[in-house]
Amino acid sequence: MQTLQHKASEWSGVRTSDAFAIDGSNLFDKLGLQPFVNLSTNFYNRVYDDEEEWFRSIFANSKKEDAIQNQYEFLAQRMGGPPLYSQRRGHPALIARHRPFPVTHEAAERWLHHMQQAMASTIEIDEESKIKMMNFLRHTAYFLVAGDELKNQNQERPCSHGATVQHPCKNF
Amino acid sequence: MQTLQHKASEWSGVRTSDAFAIDGSNLFDKLGLQPFVNLSTNFYNRVYDDEEEWFRSIFANSKKEDAIQNQYEFLAQRMGGPPLYSQRRGHPALIARHRPFPVTHEAAERWLHHMQQAMASTIEIDEESKIKMMNFLRHTAYFLVAGDELKNQNQERPCSHGATVQHPCKNF
Repeated sequence: MQTLQHKASEWSGVRTSDAFAIDGSNLFDKLGLQPFVNLSTNFYNRVYDDEEEWFRSIFANSKKEDAIQNQYEFLAQRMGGPPLYSQRRGHPALIARHRPFPVTHEAAERWLHHMQQAMASTIEIDEESKIKMMNFLRHTAYFLVAGDELKNQNQERPCSHGATVQHPCKNF
Repeated sequence: MQTLQHKASEWSGVRTSDAFAIDGSNLFDKLGLQPFVNLSTNFYNRVYDDEEEWFRSIFANSKKEDAIQNQYEFLAQRMGGPPLYSQRRGHPALIARHRPFPVTHEAAERWLHHMQQAMASTIEIDEESKIKMMNFLRHTAYFLVAGDELKNQNQERPCSHGATVQHPCKNF
């Protein structure tokens, strides 16, 4: 079986070593917290205003301000800053926490499109840091697509109520 | 809905703030890599020799040396060390990566029993660090039990092959 990280690299076009080049230096020490807040605010302003209803609707059950805080706390922590996310919510558990959402290839690309635009609008982040962060985010988006497929694998297993039933369980 | 981290705290008896007290100082800088290697080696030597077959069998499809490396790389990274785990495997994604295993309350307690014994055998780790690490590990074990329940939630949803079918999908 191809592992999650191999699928993430193949589908994103970003090698694991490039995705985690963010760990080669401390981007939080370089940038501070505010650029992460600005980035996530820019990002979710775009997402919640997306003209594509199918994408916008993925976020319909979450408050925008919560989405912003969850994201900038995670990013600041992951880029070398204080563990704001873990102190409040514990492990990131990225795949499990994205479980309620349909993280398809198409959704990943739409997410990355908005993130690229948000990066361009966030002038407090230098170009080199933007490249590192986008490599990380692109790889991570497809890591979640690979994680989303685990749900579909379950759907392909047969149900147990009747020895001859061959239909998959599709309804979750 | 109770969140994963709330369930983890309630079931483990460890508050999130105590679980993540490991982030209050850099335990890797204090200890170095070797104590983590020793701890994970001690731990899996016990696990793979467990007299309880039901627990030992959970690990039967993994090589012991891989299990040891995955664990000490994750622990060293999480305790403030170099990102050995992520460079090789990407995001920890703890719940997703434990998905193939039955992480029940009973399994969590057995895992923690062996970890407590392994800690006691690892004299290179000081008592204060042991307490912090065990709080983290106890909370994390129950975080994974909470994650395991997400699988069971799926099992309780009805299948789609027939409008009148009320039986849950149990067979994955």
